[in-house]
Amino acid sequence: MNYRIIGKTLGIILILEAILMIPSFLVSIYYNQDDRYSFLFCILFTGAVGFVLCQLKAEKKALKIKDGLAIASFGWIVLSVFGALPFVLSGSIPFYIDALFETIAGFTTAGATLVDNVEALPKGILFWRSFTHWIGGMGILVFTVAFLPVVGGFQMFRAEASGPMADRFVPRIKDTAKILYITYIALTITELILLLLGGMNLFDAMTHTFATVGTGGLSPRNGNIGAYHSTYIHMVIAVFMILSGINFSLYYALFKRKWRDVLKDQELILYLAIILVATLLITFNLTSTNGKLGASLRDAFFHVSSIITTTGYTTVNFDLWPAFSKVVLFLLMFVGGCAGSTAGGIKVIRILVLFKLIKKEIKKIFHPRAVVPIRIGEDKVIHNDTITNITGFMALYFFIFMLSTLLISLEGIDLESSISAVAATLGNIGIGFGAVSPVRTFSGFSVFSKVLFSILMLLGRLELFTMVALFAPKSWRNEI
Amino acid sequence: MNYRIIGKTLGIILILEAILMIPSFLVSIYYNQDDRYSFLFCILFTGAVGFVLCQLKAEKKALKIKDGLAIASFGWIVLSVFGALPFVLSGSIPFYIDALFETIAGFTTAGATLVDNVEALPKGILFWRSFTHWIGGMGILVFTVAFLPVVGGFQMFRAEASGPMADRFVPRIKDTAKILYITYIALTITELILLLLGGMNLFDAMTHTFATVGTGGLSPRNGNIGAYHSTYIHMVIAVFMILSGINFSLYYALFKRKWRDVLKDQELILYLAIILVATLLITFNLTSTNGKLGASLRDAFFHVSSIITTTGYTTVNFDLWPAFSKVVLFLLMFVGGCAGSTAGGIKVIRILVLFKLIKKEIKKIFHPRAVVPIRIGEDKVIHNDTITNITGFMALYFFIFMLSTLLISLEGIDLESSISAVAATLGNIGIGFGAVSPVRTFSGFSVFSKVLFSILMLLGRLELFTMVALFAPKSWRNEI
Repeated sequence: MNYRIIGKTLGIILILEAILMIPSFLVSIYYNQDDRYSFLFCILFTGAVGFVLCQLKAEKKALKIKDGLAIASFGWIVLSVFGALPFVLSGSIPFYIDALFETIAGFTTAGATLVDNVEALPKGILFWRSFTHWIGGMGILVFTVAFLPVVGGFQMFRAEASGPMADRFVPRIKDTAKILYITYIALTITELILLLLGGMNLFDAMTHTFATVGTGGLSPRNGNIGAYHSTYIHMVIAVFMILSGINFSLYYALFKRKWRDVLKDQELILYLAIILVATLLITFNLTSTNGKLGASLRDAFFHVSSIITTTGYTTVNFDLWPAFSKVVLFLLMFVGGCAGSTAGGIKVIRILVLFKLIKKEIKKIFHPRAVVPIRIGEDKVIHNDTITNITGFMALYFFIFMLSTLLISLEGIDLESSISAVAATLGNIGIGFGAVSPVRTFSGFSVFSKVLFSILMLLGRLELFTMVALFAPKSWRNEI
Repeated sequence: MNYRIIGKTLGIILILEAILMIPSFLVSIYYNQDDRYSFLFCILFTGAVGFVLCQLKAEKKALKIKDGLAIASFGWIVLSVFGALPFVLSGSIPFYIDALFETIAGFTTAGATLVDNVEALPKGILFWRSFTHWIGGMGILVFTVAFLPVVGGFQMFRAEASGPMADRFVPRIKDTAKILYITYIALTITELILLLLGGMNLFDAMTHTFATVGTGGLSPRNGNIGAYHSTYIHMVIAVFMILSGINFSLYYALFKRKWRDVLKDQELILYLAIILVATLLITFNLTSTNGKLGASLRDAFFHVSSIITTTGYTTVNFDLWPAFSKVVLFLLMFVGGCAGSTAGGIKVIRILVLFKLIKKEIKKIFHPRAVVPIRIGEDKVIHNDTITNITGFMALYFFIFMLSTLLISLEGIDLESSISAVAATLGNIGIGFGAVSPVRTFSGFSVFSKVLFSILMLLGRLELFTMVALFAPKSWRNEI
């Protein structure tokens, strides 16, 4: 392992983080609250540690794969370790493990929270809490790798990028990253304006926009989005969650006027189809019990958008919905957004490939010796390695899922709660049913479970293999 | 499609079924109960229909793949359709759909029941109910295909055989089938003797043996195995469930004194390791709450054996166990026995291959261009097609699983109940948690759900693809 380069890169990440804490500091000064001292200290401390690490003399050497994995994994861990400090120092979340959980939930855009009374926190802290979503949404590492001249490495870009197909769509990583950020910022500004037009104040509009475009789900309001009794606001947020769950390369295609590419994108079609069908199913189910078609449609659309994009925003407590609607949402917890978006979870493209795999197997029953390629779209044949990677991912996902459910069940909560708590963290959604329903937080869990949930959120954000490979005992035995 | 050959084969199956009803008829005569008339009628009727179908003049023509699929699928359906008649005619289960459910649960060895008071049923009916397990356990079609000179076809053998690796282990199907049946009968006789030695009466010993070696789980006692307060009986049944869940070809290897083959069989090792670990985990968990080590160990071992082999026998209501023990059993519902056994479910070999797939993917991160074969044992490289087949199976399993859970949730039961009811039927286990816990039956479900459960049991027994392929619209469009 090339410890010096890793250290140096982590140093740069810390300096960036210190800079990214400044807006929260300014917010705390504006509101003249005590958390400003915590931010001042954290900015100086984080920046200083980063500066010291940057002094490491790294030889000009090609990065090994393991170095890339280490930077990606430790990058997120270090970000969270320092990002948690303002919560502790300001006394908002005094216990460090809790603060770390909350910060990881922020950066990974899981948006799980253990703060029972959010509105009691100072404004600067609330801003930081939501801003971590925005930072984590697109990935600070993409930024580091693409724009800073320390280390390159497509491997690292892939390690952090979401979904199996998230390849570069323009030749240079830097250009790809630039396009991603422009799209991200454009989405952010548009939603911000629309929320302000809806009568939200600037602070709320900003924090909610960060959590929407980052598909995070933390809110500075105890009632989450339900605190706003405005269908307009619900709909703006729902639509922007969906937009943030679309592969960002499609926006670039739109910008280049390649309409056909967008309209024929099979992942996009399936993603929108799932949203449509799920919304209709829940709407019918809710209407049949409450008789209110309009309200049912609104709530169904909002929560389908929220869960499939792994945001986790809520306007009502869907844990009280009839069983059928709950199962629809539960299944959506295992879908996730599109590859190359800010959404987490399994991703629609993987589901699509699995569908095609099943079709292929049925074909093979009738033509045992035929070679049946799997295609996405008209002419894109999926390479066998990609398929194995996807099935391997699914297998690992469910093994981690099952093992974690077992460990969480030590809490003594019911199966539904255990399963949905694990789905909520591993899938970066942040909420679920039972013990983690919209009206509950993660505060009741043991320290052991909180640590496990934190690991699951990181695993989910880095799409499992990056971290699992890094910590696989075999990868340490022989220096690769 | 070669309708005549299909018809003729179904005719033979019906004649066989009529013959197989005779023991139940004799039991009902012995006990001098009214169900003897129903059996007499059913034997004559089933035999007659079979005889008529046998008169079909089939040309000597090679079977097409679709014919094989049709025989396998319709074979099980026809068996069940006629097998349900005694329940209806004797008035034991007056509603035909219910009787069909119970019969399918018997033949598929799922062992799900909707009879709330079993002990009220006449003896002949109870005998038939358990005997369907024994018939279904090894598969009546294997028998038909192997020993009757109508049609051959390895395809059909595979369609019904359990697990992906269930290939012939001696060159001729007939010899393979013979070895399977000898093993099956040897297991049956041994368990029968051991249960009689434990003080069980002949009727109970026979019915319970059928359900053990067939890994079915139906019992003529309301208390299931819990009706016997004998650790000896619990242990005999637990051990024979495990024995019936082992790949039968290993018994042949033992018989041929190939000890090494048996001791090095990775599926067997993993199967036994899972049983050991699960038993220990539950034992510790139960002991920590009730303080009784011996009883906890006994109950843990019994139910781990029962669930992993997809039998579904119970001695206590494990739905009342602490959450951790319940989750261990819940996870076992997704394991199943070994390939080539009478057990249902996903099968240990598939889990093993998925494990290796994950290891392969981790290796590939470090050596992106390496060709990493997957091996089971020392030198057996798993062909890529088999791996795709296994991952395709898993994908199909979970898609069917999720869709069914959604449909079952229309009953308005909680998520835990919906999930475990689907797992219990698709995995051919027959019991689960909540609404399908050991003290409940399937009688409370709607007709719609009962039909769905029946389909799931058949799908599970035929390992999905056989039926799905047959009913896939594309397979009908162009005559293959």
